[in-house]
Amino acid sequence: MFKKLLVANRGEIAIRIIRSAQELGIKTVAIYEETDKTAMHIMRADEAICIGSGPRKDYLSIERIIQAAQTTGAEAIHPGYGFLAENPNFSKKCTEAGLVFVGPPPKVISDMGSKVVAREIMAKAGIPVIPGTPVLDDGEAGEQQATRFAERYGFPIMVKAVAGGGGRGIRFSNDLPELLKNLKMARSEAKMAFGNDQVYLEKSLVKPRHVEVQILADDFGNVIHLGTRNCSIQRRHQKMIEIAPANLPKLVLNRICDTAVQAARACNYLNAGTVEFLLDEEDRFYFLEVNTRIQVEHTVTEVITGVDLVREQIRIASGQPLSLSQEDVTFRGVAIELRINAEDPKNNFMASPGVVQIYMSPGGHGTRLDGAVYQGYEIPRYYDSMLVKLTVYGFTWREAVDRLHRVLNSFAIAGVKTTIPYYKQIVKDPDFIAQRFDTSYIETHPHLLDYQEEVPELEKLASLVAEINAYGYNPYAES
Amino acid sequence: MFKKLLVANRGEIAIRIIRSAQELGIKTVAIYEETDKTAMHIMRADEAICIGSGPRKDYLSIERIIQAAQTTGAEAIHPGYGFLAENPNFSKKCTEAGLVFVGPPPKVISDMGSKVVAREIMAKAGIPVIPGTPVLDDGEAGEQQATRFAERYGFPIMVKAVAGGGGRGIRFSNDLPELLKNLKMARSEAKMAFGNDQVYLEKSLVKPRHVEVQILADDFGNVIHLGTRNCSIQRRHQKMIEIAPANLPKLVLNRICDTAVQAARACNYLNAGTVEFLLDEEDRFYFLEVNTRIQVEHTVTEVITGVDLVREQIRIASGQPLSLSQEDVTFRGVAIELRINAEDPKNNFMASPGVVQIYMSPGGHGTRLDGAVYQGYEIPRYYDSMLVKLTVYGFTWREAVDRLHRVLNSFAIAGVKTTIPYYKQIVKDPDFIAQRFDTSYIETHPHLLDYQEEVPELEKLASLVAEINAYGYNPYAES
Repeated sequence: MFKKLLVANRGEIAIRIIRSAQELGIKTVAIYEETDKTAMHIMRADEAICIGSGPRKDYLSIERIIQAAQTTGAEAIHPGYGFLAENPNFSKKCTEAGLVFVGPPPKVISDMGSKVVAREIMAKAGIPVIPGTPVLDDGEAGEQQATRFAERYGFPIMVKAVAGGGGRGIRFSNDLPELLKNLKMARSEAKMAFGNDQVYLEKSLVKPRHVEVQILADDFGNVIHLGTRNCSIQRRHQKMIEIAPANLPKLVLNRICDTAVQAARACNYLNAGTVEFLLDEEDRFYFLEVNTRIQVEHTVTEVITGVDLVREQIRIASGQPLSLSQEDVTFRGVAIELRINAEDPKNNFMASPGVVQIYMSPGGHGTRLDGAVYQGYEIPRYYDSMLVKLTVYGFTWREAVDRLHRVLNSFAIAGVKTTIPYYKQIVKDPDFIAQRFDTSYIETHPHLLDYQEEVPELEKLASLVAEINAYGYNPYAES
Repeated sequence: MFKKLLVANRGEIAIRIIRSAQELGIKTVAIYEETDKTAMHIMRADEAICIGSGPRKDYLSIERIIQAAQTTGAEAIHPGYGFLAENPNFSKKCTEAGLVFVGPPPKVISDMGSKVVAREIMAKAGIPVIPGTPVLDDGEAGEQQATRFAERYGFPIMVKAVAGGGGRGIRFSNDLPELLKNLKMARSEAKMAFGNDQVYLEKSLVKPRHVEVQILADDFGNVIHLGTRNCSIQRRHQKMIEIAPANLPKLVLNRICDTAVQAARACNYLNAGTVEFLLDEEDRFYFLEVNTRIQVEHTVTEVITGVDLVREQIRIASGQPLSLSQEDVTFRGVAIELRINAEDPKNNFMASPGVVQIYMSPGGHGTRLDGAVYQGYEIPRYYDSMLVKLTVYGFTWREAVDRLHRVLNSFAIAGVKTTIPYYKQIVKDPDFIAQRFDTSYIETHPHLLDYQEEVPELEKLASLVAEINAYGYNPYAES
């Protein structure tokens, strides 16, 4: 096992990784930029090294990070998520420098990073992919290809720019004239936006659900799954709420998990990864992509399986076999994860940086927190606005929802606006409670933003203390 | 289901109960005394009512508590543990006042409260009890009874005062002359201490282990167990560390759990309870007592079974059946619970009251906190000194110990001395790691108290912040 690990990230995921490493008896090295020197991951590591003046850019500097590992004598690097986590060149450079990259090899990262290559690999392996075309020919030939595709698969259809991504460069069409018009417009837009006018078509699923499967694979040919997550509740393609397991018939659950293992084998996967699928209204699933990293929402899987995924990641990277077999993986209850961000939901979820003046977090049965915030911390404006990841467990879905409600009401965060009041609305929403949600949930429930601005927790606490001191606390007598 | 529940307790267990009640949609009423008006349970309840000037006595006032329930319109009372939890008169008075007591009926509490009655009931039901005598006759007749008992069961033997309890009024004998001498001395001591010279004998187990079984029983005749806890690590008969499950052969585990269910049926148990056993060196177990309440250490059972015991308690009290059957109870991994107290272990565990100047608690996978403390809270000297209950989970024993180590290192508590440094010693102890512990563990490991007084966390943090501000934080470069 490694003696020292460098964590090439910041915030909650850096702390998450440091925890598992320390539990394995591995010393940890944090990196930071000068602008980020009050961040909590620095305090949690055994040592920390400043890699530049920042902001943000140094966390993306492959050279500086590798140099930091060499300076501190770290033998391995864990990339976390975001930043360099899915950069095949980073994985490659680590290996070239004699460092172990905690993740898959460069080939897997680059194959899965290309949607076109990934889809080819999966289609060849017999895994259902969303129907689509290769790059369309120019002019009339392309129009004919589009027409034939529409005749075969029906509408809606997306025109997608090859050079697009993350929701950019996509046009939806509901009939043939619209499709042919969009084809032209998409080409010229793509030319302008990306300097590349190549486009292709993909069948658009109506109100699909996003269901993904956690995978672990080791150097000895063992590949196991750790069940499903439903991540349908998204805002602008960003996941907001994730649930394990997905609420699907047992037969579908089994098939999707088996398919994910097959997909992992098809791309020679190694370490922890996620195979993402879209499900249509008849529970038919289609391969979407493979994320070649630990994901934000991995906590829900840990809670229902009891398996420490980051511990497994580090063990696998050190050349050890998986510490458990498929038969050892058991599922219990339901877990829900929320990202509590310093944002103002009523103002288009704009970031709300500032000093966290009060931070009191809930605890107790079925409550897991993965935070990177402390009372007095000034949230920097250069990074994502996540304060803390909240994961609740329930023996049943209903118990998990009940608990989520209680826990959200028990946070006291003052100084910044947070997404908590918005989540409280969701937890009370009959569609959410009935598990009726697909990827359109947030946009089809705009009324959930119509909440009263809450009394800031700071004021509530101050008045509570004053009241207790004056009279003893007895709101009942006053109501 | 109840609309409103009064919690007749304070501190972490009051908050624990409030959480489950709120999750069930029940409004909660906290009680407090004037001296305790900054306690956190007050803030967590939906309303709170001051029941007197304190200290301590009002939490024991049956009349005031029932009056508070009536004033606030609460329909039920949860006693927690300690205070009035095992007072059969409290249970009786609640019922007479038309309030539901969340716990067993008075008869069960009083039967199990008497060690002699409890032993009779269990012996009659065929449950193994520690060999003992009835009250001994006076003079020579008593000496003959003692001699016969020693011939049959061997030494060591305890002479116990009928009026004793909690470790008081007990004398150990290793041979017959010592026994006969102790018999006389115990009588005269008991006469002086309790005004009652009645004594009886009990076989003393050598280095026993304390193993208990969690029970749930409803109004419909359903009784289930939720597995075992090893609570052998005790200091002066006070549990310090509790572990679930007990590390015993599967056959013994099954038998002890079945016996506990049988014991619960034998005493007509209702609601949540614990059947305690002592185990000898050959894994033979003997009934010790039944605790007729929720216990401090219930969290380890919740963690390995995923069942919310307080939720079940409230459901049972409201007349609902158990929400799960024995087949629904599954066990995964290992949980360890520690009581982090404001005490100075090096000074005979003397209470260390004061203001908590810094309180930062750890989180992440497998970490559960049940606290009643916040930064700025002044720990009152009138109540027990528990700051927070820490429960860690691991997929295996080794992982749980690894995690415990990490978590203990991640607390930052300043202003009061705590038991954390002592626990850190235990977690590193080879006997603990190898699970070699019985009820003599604390006294046979006095060297674990030989630790260096740590740099107070406050100073560490202050110097860290200064260092970061001055140079950026890079301890590696300095070491």
